[in-house]
Amino acid sequence: MKLSRRDFLVASGLMAGLVTGGKLLEGRAWAYPYSSEFEYAELDPEEVAWEAYRNYFQKWCCSTVLEGLVSQLKKRVGGPWRDFPVDAYRWAHGGLAGWGALCGTLTGAGIVIGLVNRDTDTAEAMVNDLAFFYSYTPLPKYEPRKILKAEIQNMSVAGTPVCHISVGRWMAAEGVAFLTEERAERCARLSADVARRTAEILNEWYRNGKKYTPKNRVLYNLLHNGITSQNNCMDCHGQNVPHPEETYATLKK
Amino acid sequence: MKLSRRDFLVASGLMAGLVTGGKLLEGRAWAYPYSSEFEYAELDPEEVAWEAYRNYFQKWCCSTVLEGLVSQLKKRVGGPWRDFPVDAYRWAHGGLAGWGALCGTLTGAGIVIGLVNRDTDTAEAMVNDLAFFYSYTPLPKYEPRKILKAEIQNMSVAGTPVCHISVGRWMAAEGVAFLTEERAERCARLSADVARRTAEILNEWYRNGKKYTPKNRVLYNLLHNGITSQNNCMDCHGQNVPHPEETYATLKK
Repeated sequence: MKLSRRDFLVASGLMAGLVTGGKLLEGRAWAYPYSSEFEYAELDPEEVAWEAYRNYFQKWCCSTVLEGLVSQLKKRVGGPWRDFPVDAYRWAHGGLAGWGALCGTLTGAGIVIGLVNRDTDTAEAMVNDLAFFYSYTPLPKYEPRKILKAEIQNMSVAGTPVCHISVGRWMAAEGVAFLTEERAERCARLSADVARRTAEILNEWYRNGKKYTPKNRVLYNLLHNGITSQNNCMDCHGQNVPHPEETYATLKK
Repeated sequence: MKLSRRDFLVASGLMAGLVTGGKLLEGRAWAYPYSSEFEYAELDPEEVAWEAYRNYFQKWCCSTVLEGLVSQLKKRVGGPWRDFPVDAYRWAHGGLAGWGALCGTLTGAGIVIGLVNRDTDTAEAMVNDLAFFYSYTPLPKYEPRKILKAEIQNMSVAGTPVCHISVGRWMAAEGVAFLTEERAERCARLSADVARRTAEILNEWYRNGKKYTPKNRVLYNLLHNGITSQNNCMDCHGQNVPHPEETYATLKK
């Protein structure tokens, strides 16, 4: 029996519901503490943003977000931050070496969030909130104290943490190509936005005795769609937007 | 003037060609050396794979690939690997906290590749080759010495490093939902495949005096499509597979 794609999506959701009994991925299941040598101290988000912005043009998205945060942590905390190799993560730029998957700013931010946490659940809640900020805020909104590359006019809402879609939507809004000074300026300012928001999230947690109140529900609660994704299945799987044919060519039951 | 989406894609490509003069992103432009405390030693890929496989069910994709590699580096090299917090990267699972973007196995692999390198270009070439392996090899092909969760029957070709598509294609091939023991088994074996391939790539580089011959051209050479992506634009942007309407709603010139 061949299932339609939509039948498959519905069936997946139902099976997910049965398997979980409505509860398996709720709450704090599977989270655990871990140790780390890396400490945090309250940072100045504006300094973090400027360092991320100005280093983008050499380090690109992931490493420059790390530079924004780690340059300040070296001064405020020291210790193992002094030897932290921000450039060792440059491969994460462009959604993984230019493949256009996950925006490297979120990889950079996640690395610092993970290192200063001691709890997988809290780190994940912060990364999740940052992904919501990235996906649903008009960006870039950072205004550099000195413009280093180009004047730009537009913000756009990415709708996703995926690099290719995020940068594509902004390029369409601005009417420019990828290899332009304007696009580089946009990604530099976006890096500043993500680095600054990360510092704000970590400051809030630090000031609150290292407790964090999530602002959004984690998406890996899979009860609604039965797969790792946002809850907007029909954006791509709807009738007017069919999935590439080969995807479900192997579907069987 | 309103451009069609396809016009925009073509124009982006042309503009990219003009900006680059056909050369800007060729070769080793913008690469640079960096320092790192983390050393490498030749690892047993089968041990790496087994450690990645058996730890998946607690640590999930990113941290378990790290565990596979780091557990061996602790024994073979020691030094800063002894304090390396593999669990600090658990947030990268499920394509970033379940958002379905970049498969966390590649984040984990990239972290080790970046730390043992001293050169952004070499690290990127290795990550790029690993992304090609991930995207175009039928996986999972790892056969555990002891099956810990479930028997599974199928391999699938992801065609992309994106978690949601990769796991979705395998689920369709196997005919199972996300929250099943079979899907967990698949991601555990896939983690073993990526960890093992990473060890093989790093071993090759190490035996060759820390020189690496790339097996694939890097994708961030943007001459062909003018944006961060694979060179398969028409899979999503073709006439039969229109892009979600809102994507180019802001397009203007």
